[in-house]
Amino acid sequence: MKCHRDKVIVLKRTTAFYGWRDFPQQKSDPSMVDIAMIEAARARIDGRARRTPLLSSPFLDEIAGRRLFVKAECLQHTGSFKFRGGWSAVSALEPSVRARGVIAFSSGNHAQGVALAAQLHGIPAVIIMPSDAPKLKIANTRALGAEVVLYDRVKEDRDEIGARLSRERGLTLIKPFDEPQVIAGQGTTGLEIAEQAAEEGIDTATVLVPCGGGGLTSGIALALEARAPGFKVRPCEPKNFEDTTRSLVSGQIERNAALQGSICDAIITPQPGNITFPILKRLCGPGLVVTDEEALDAMELAFKRLKIVVEPGGAVALAAALFHGKEIDGDTVIAVTSGGNVDTDVFEAALRRH
Amino acid sequence: MKCHRDKVIVLKRTTAFYGWRDFPQQKSDPSMVDIAMIEAARARIDGRARRTPLLSSPFLDEIAGRRLFVKAECLQHTGSFKFRGGWSAVSALEPSVRARGVIAFSSGNHAQGVALAAQLHGIPAVIIMPSDAPKLKIANTRALGAEVVLYDRVKEDRDEIGARLSRERGLTLIKPFDEPQVIAGQGTTGLEIAEQAAEEGIDTATVLVPCGGGGLTSGIALALEARAPGFKVRPCEPKNFEDTTRSLVSGQIERNAALQGSICDAIITPQPGNITFPILKRLCGPGLVVTDEEALDAMELAFKRLKIVVEPGGAVALAAALFHGKEIDGDTVIAVTSGGNVDTDVFEAALRRH
Repeated sequence: MKCHRDKVIVLKRTTAFYGWRDFPQQKSDPSMVDIAMIEAARARIDGRARRTPLLSSPFLDEIAGRRLFVKAECLQHTGSFKFRGGWSAVSALEPSVRARGVIAFSSGNHAQGVALAAQLHGIPAVIIMPSDAPKLKIANTRALGAEVVLYDRVKEDRDEIGARLSRERGLTLIKPFDEPQVIAGQGTTGLEIAEQAAEEGIDTATVLVPCGGGGLTSGIALALEARAPGFKVRPCEPKNFEDTTRSLVSGQIERNAALQGSICDAIITPQPGNITFPILKRLCGPGLVVTDEEALDAMELAFKRLKIVVEPGGAVALAAALFHGKEIDGDTVIAVTSGGNVDTDVFEAALRRH
Repeated sequence: MKCHRDKVIVLKRTTAFYGWRDFPQQKSDPSMVDIAMIEAARARIDGRARRTPLLSSPFLDEIAGRRLFVKAECLQHTGSFKFRGGWSAVSALEPSVRARGVIAFSSGNHAQGVALAAQLHGIPAVIIMPSDAPKLKIANTRALGAEVVLYDRVKEDRDEIGARLSRERGLTLIKPFDEPQVIAGQGTTGLEIAEQAAEEGIDTATVLVPCGGGGLTSGIALALEARAPGFKVRPCEPKNFEDTTRSLVSGQIERNAALQGSICDAIITPQPGNITFPILKRLCGPGLVVTDEEALDAMELAFKRLKIVVEPGGAVALAAALFHGKEIDGDTVIAVTSGGNVDTDVFEAALRRH
């Protein structure tokens, strides 16, 4: 840390998750996130993001009671779809702004997605993580060229540290989901789903997506609205953290009562985003809620039948497809497995359940 | 084959692996396996076999000391490349011959590949397995629609059982590797490697392939000879079972001293094939030999960095790329991970080594 502090700005956590209004941000108009923005993101991402495969297994079809396809986004660079949003946001910045670098708050998949996107653009990335984050995640993020700034959860204010660094260095904040260019990047997953489903001759399907803040779900929903109008997107969440499911029922943003207590930590956020929720409300079907045990069982079946590694939060849509078939309509379901960054002990626990 | 036999032929195991000469077989001319046959196999396989992705990770590049790409054939239908050869062979049969069904000897990946290919063609498949084969493999093969015939390794003669069934029902034997249409099917992996490498801008590379009987290795070598002449194929084998490596050194077919004693069981065969070896000898570079421990470490790194599940035999080429870099020339290596059908306990052993 080379910076100096000459006054302390204390940003208090309000009803908003982060005190983002105080950061330099991308200047996108929230109402502008649409299929054109997704197509533009895809043009920038082409040859950079991996076109992840659409997998299937007759054994999983049988359990699901219908045709089941899996969009294996765990095979994306950095092991999750987050690289798409990171690349989209970084590549959309004006070059002179981008050159100063980007900053993100994350101890998980967003950190690695932004770090790799910045590294490939040859610009600095600062990732702010709690000092008690898993050492492997810290090491991975550093190995992708990012400067990791650790803070003490108890004694220090993350937002204050971020705001100061960003002000001093002119870094642009890359938000994890409630940002149009991030949503557009995640939406490129939806364009691929539309194309790959067409190759399989599918014109109607239910598309299940693991949902945290709603960046991936809203992006896919926008892409499919334009490119596969016979598809219906449904968000999937872990039990007791079904803020989006409840928000879709009430018609307004509902918050989770707690922020920990599920192994599906990667997709637990306090509430749907202010930009993502209106999109989810307009385009998505009802949410689906699965237990941690169902997520673990889905991980085991993905290991056994698809030969892919899925993390608990990334497995909730597959779990819904496999174990909540009665709540789903139609002959065909496409489940997104959104990430594969799982610790060995959790993965072994999934394999050892039966 | 329309011929009838009115006497029982008892086939004893000789120096050849199987007494195949006495089975109805495909009538391909061994000298005919070439790029045209591979292209024809690809035309038949298109839309049936999965175009498996070419994966990479900066973390693996660093270990390998060069750019490393992984052709993730463990993501193929039935969890291994064997579906390609199975489909190619079944689809190449004359329709009236095919309709009577096919037969194969296998307790592993070839069994499932042939079973699924037959099921998708709507024809019977008989798979002959030892009665002590893992129950899961028997169940999987049956679930893919095949009739599994079990024999007692001690008391019964597998070839005699196969010959009788094949005679009685007019079944055609699908050999695991030493058959031109099977080699052509496996060669479609090589066509994809050539295309995917071109998309990455690669025009010279060492291509490492797990090698048992040589069907996959020879098929890829033929495809790359024609479509990516700057690529050199090298077979990879487990230590103490390096029959192909030794054969390439001596210039003639050498046999393994034993047939068990490695966790890489899927790629242990007595010797290279009579059709495959001349192709390997003409086109391949020297073999590479890895230990079981290196194969397990490669599995762990594939789990951690690529989010794919690889079986020990399927991981030997990746292990060679990662841990035998000094024996490899050039800036770019492409390693095929040929299968992912691994039992939970072996996979856990790989994850628990460090």
